[in-house]
Amino acid sequence: MVCGLPGIGSVAWLAVSHLQKELHAQLLAEVFSPMFSPKVWLGEDGVVGVMKGEFHFWKNKPGGPDLLLFTANEQPYSPEGQYELAEVALGLARKFAAKRVITMGGMATDRLAEQPRVYVGATDTELVKELEAYGALKLAGGAITGTNGLIFGLAKPKNIPAICLLAETPGYLSLDANAAKAALELSARLLNITVDLTALEKQAKENVDVVRKAKDLSRTFNREGRKGGDRELPYVS
Amino acid sequence: MVCGLPGIGSVAWLAVSHLQKELHAQLLAEVFSPMFSPKVWLGEDGVVGVMKGEFHFWKNKPGGPDLLLFTANEQPYSPEGQYELAEVALGLARKFAAKRVITMGGMATDRLAEQPRVYVGATDTELVKELEAYGALKLAGGAITGTNGLIFGLAKPKNIPAICLLAETPGYLSLDANAAKAALELSARLLNITVDLTALEKQAKENVDVVRKAKDLSRTFNREGRKGGDRELPYVS
Amino acid sequence: MVCGLPGIGSVAWLAVSHLQKELHAQLLAEVFSPMFSPKVWLGEDGVVGVMKGEFHFWKNKPGGPDLLLFTANEQPYSPEGQYELAEVALGLARKFAAKRVITMGGMATDRLAEQPRVYVGATDTELVKELEAYGALKLAGGAITGTNGLIFGLAKPKNIPAICLLAETPGYLSLDANAAKAALELSARLLNITVDLTALEKQAKENVDVVRKAKDLSRTFNREGRKGGDRELPYVS
Amino acid sequence: MVCGLPGIGSVAWLAVSHLQKELHAQLLAEVFSPMFSPKVWLGEDGVVGVMKGEFHFWKNKPGGPDLLLFTANEQPYSPEGQYELAEVALGLARKFAAKRVITMGGMATDRLAEQPRVYVGATDTELVKELEAYGALKLAGGAITGTNGLIFGLAKPKNIPAICLLAETPGYLSLDANAAKAALELSARLLNITVDLTALEKQAKENVDVVRKAKDLSRTFNREGRKGGDRELPYVS
Repeated sequence: MVCGLPGIGSVAWLAVSHLQKELHAQLLAEVFSPMFSPKVWLGEDGVVGVMKGEFHFWKNKPGGPDLLLFTANEQPYSPEGQYELAEVALGLARKFAAKRVITMGGMATDRLAEQPRVYVGATDTELVKELEAYGALKLAGGAITGTNGLIFGLAKPKNIPAICLLAETPGYLSLDANAAKAALELSARLLNITVDLTALEKQAKENVDVVRKAKDLSRTFNREGRKGGDRELPYVS
Repeated sequence: MVCGLPGIGSVAWLAVSHLQKELHAQLLAEVFSPMFSPKVWLGEDGVVGVMKGEFHFWKNKPGGPDLLLFTANEQPYSPEGQYELAEVALGLARKFAAKRVITMGGMATDRLAEQPRVYVGATDTELVKELEAYGALKLAGGAITGTNGLIFGLAKPKNIPAICLLAETPGYLSLDANAAKAALELSARLLNITVDLTALEKQAKENVDVVRKAKDLSRTFNREGRKGGDRELPYVS
Repeated sequence: MVCGLPGIGSVAWLAVSHLQKELHAQLLAEVFSPMFSPKVWLGEDGVVGVMKGEFHFWKNKPGGPDLLLFTANEQPYSPEGQYELAEVALGLARKFAAKRVITMGGMATDRLAEQPRVYVGATDTELVKELEAYGALKLAGGAITGTNGLIFGLAKPKNIPAICLLAETPGYLSLDANAAKAALELSARLLNITVDLTALEKQAKENVDVVRKAKDLSRTFNREGRKGGDRELPYVS
Repeated sequence: MVCGLPGIGSVAWLAVSHLQKELHAQLLAEVFSPMFSPKVWLGEDGVVGVMKGEFHFWKNKPGGPDLLLFTANEQPYSPEGQYELAEVALGLARKFAAKRVITMGGMATDRLAEQPRVYVGATDTELVKELEAYGALKLAGGAITGTNGLIFGLAKPKNIPAICLLAETPGYLSLDANAAKAALELSARLLNITVDLTALEKQAKENVDVVRKAKDLSRTFNREGRKGGDRELPYVS
C-alpha cells in the first residue's frame, strides 16, 4: 500500500495522485468522515465534491506486487480523526494482506534543491538499511506529524512493515512537484515498477520558473533598498 | 426535501420557515442533539424552547410532489455535529424516498440587489442545466460550508439528486428576506407550486428602508467629516 | 426533582446543597464523567475528592412529595457533557416518576437586593401562572445557558413539567447565599415543605458585611481621588 | 500498582521509568489511543516509535508484593483522553487485584531543595497517617490535575486504596531527577523493596551543576547591570 495525504508541500498527495493517474488504478473505496472539514466545493461545471479519502487498486503484471493507493483531499481536522483515518487505511491494508506500507511526506528545509534528498524511517532497522541501499538517507531522529506519520507508525504494533519517505521541500511551496517526483522515483525503484514522471517534471519546471522570477524580483527590490523582498521569500537562500 | 438552516443572511432559514408557514406543513419529527448550543430560551409567555431541528411534511395535490421541509434554529456548533445533522436529514430523505434534495444558502456579495441573483450547484451536470433553464446561474467553483452544504454534498454518494441554490446577499444583513424570496421563487418554479410571498416581501421592504436610512445617516456623517460611518456599513457601495 | 448545579453566584448549587443538608437527604447515586475537569482535590485531611454529580433522596411525611435532589461540584466543561449530564438527571427523574423538575439559577443584575426577586420560566403557561401566584415574576424572554437550563428545557420534549427559578444576583458575588435563600423559599412554598434557612441567612449576612466594607473602602478611595475603587466593585450602584 | 505519567518536572515519569529499568520489569501491555498526539518519532536508528502507555510487571521475591508499573510517553491531550487512560490503568489494577495504587507527581515550588520534601494525599485518612509515618507530609488542600491525579482520585469510588506522592520541584526543571529520587525512596520504603538509585542520583547531580552554573552566570549578569538574568531563571532564589 502506498499512502499520501496532503501535508508540507503536498508532496505525498502529489506523488500518490500522480501514481494513481499514471497507473490508471481503479477506485476501490471511498471514506467519508465527520472528522473532515464541514464543507463541500463546486467544480467548474457546478457539480459538487465532498471531502473524502479514496482507495485505488492497481493490478500489476504477474510476479510484481499489486498496489493499493490511499489518498484524501485533506487531513482530518482533529487529532482523533487523524488516528481514525490511519486505522481505516491500515485496516484495509490488512484486509488486502499488504506486504508493506509506504507513506510519504515533505521535510521542510530552507533550500530549493534541484535533486531533493529523500530521507527514510521504517518500522525496523533492516528496512532502513534496504532503503539506504536504494539511495535514501536514514533520518536519525525527528517527529512526523499527521495522518501520514500515524499510518506509518501505527503499522508497527500491527506488525505490518512500513516505510516513510520524506523528500526535501522548501517551506514556501504549496505544491512541490519536484519533491513528489523524488519520493516517487525512489518508491518506483523499491516496488520495481515503471512510472511516467513527465507530468510531475513539467509541473516541477513551472514551479522553478515561478520561484526564479520571484527571486529576480526579490533581488531587484533589495537592490533598490525596498523592504519586504526577503520577507516575501523567507526561505530562498 | 427542501432544507434550510441558519447561515449568511439567514437566507435558507427564512425561505424554508416561510414555506412551512405558508403551506401549513405538519410537524413530522424533531431532532435534539448535544451538538447544539448548551442553552434554552424563554418566549414572551415564559415558556421554554430548546435548540432543535424540525421536519415538516406537506401533502401536495394529486400529481404534484409532496414536500419534506427541514430546518433548525441553529447550526450545530461543531463540525462533527454538522455532519451528524446532515446525515439525519438525508436519512429521513431516503426513508421518505425523496426524489430530490433542495438546499439553499446566501452568497455574500458587497451589493444590495433589488433582484438578487440565484446561483446553483448540483450533484450532476444535467441538474445544473435544468436549473439554469429556470433562471439560476451556474456557480463555477467555490466552497459551501456548514450543514446546508453538507446535506447538499453528501446526497451525492447516497445517489440522491441534490441542488444548492445560493442567493446573493450583502454581508451586513442578518435576516435578508429579499434573498430568501429570490431563492424561494426559483424553488417554487422548480417544484411547480404556488407560494404566497407577501410576508417575505413586506419584511424585505422593511430591510430596504432600514438600510436606506442607515445609508443616508452614513452619508451625513461622512459629509460632516465624522469617522465611523463607513465602518458601520462597510459593505454598502 | 430539584436540580442545582454551579453557575452565576452559585445560587442553584447553594440552594440545593442547603436543602440536602437540612433535610438530611440520603445519597442515592453518584455520576462520574470524562466531561468533568481532569482534576481531583485534597481536603484538609489529605483525603482526595473527585468531580462528580450526586443524587440525594428525601422521604417526605405521608401525603407530601418525596424529593430527588441533584447537584454536582462543577458543570461539565464541554457542551456535549452538559447535554449528557442533563440527560442523566432527566433519566433518573423519569425512573423515579418525578412529577415535576425544579431547576434554579442566578440572574445577573447590577444591584444588591435585600429581597432578591425570583423570576420564573416553565414548560407550559399554566405552570408559569402557578408560580406567579407563589410570588415569582414571569421571565418574558432571555436565554438560560448551561446544565441547569438544559435539564429545564429538555424536560419539555420528555413531557416532564419543569420550572426554572432565577434569583437576582449581583455579578460580583461568587457565592450569593441571599439569592439562594430567595429561590429556596419559593421552592419550599411550592413543595409545601419547611426548610430551616438559618445557615443561608447567616452566610448571606456575612456577604452583605463584606460588600458593605468594600463599599466603604471604595468610597474612601474615591474621596481621596484614587483610581480603582469603582473598578474593583463595578456593579455596586 | 505504581503509576507515573509525564507532568511537572517529569517527576513521576522519571521515577516509574527508573523503577522499571532497575527492576527489569517485563512489558505486559501497551495502550494506544487517538487521545494521544497525532505524531510519531524516529530514533537514532531511523526506527519509528508511537505514542503509547506501557504496563510492566515485576515478580517480587516470595512474601513481597509484585508490582504493576504504568507509564506513558505523554499525557493524552484532551480531558476525556486523560479520564479514559486513567480508567484503563485502574481497570488493569483491578484485573490484577492490585492492593494499592501509588501515583506520583511534582509540586512546583520556588526553591531548589537538596532534599525535596514529599507531600502525600490518599483515599482515606489511615493511608495518609501511614504515609506520614514513612516521612511524607500531609498535603492539606490543593488540586492535582492530569492523568496522575485522575488515576489517584478515581481509585476511590472503585474502592482501591490509593496514594499520591508529590515531590517538591522547582518549576524550571524539565527533568527533575532529584525530586523523582525523593518520591521513589519513599515508595521503596513503603513497598519494602530495594532500588538502586545511582542513575537518578547521577542525573540529579548534573542538574544541580547546570543550575549552579546558570546561577553564577545570572549573578554575573546582574552585577554587570544587564537585564534578563532574572528573567531567564525566574524561580532561582
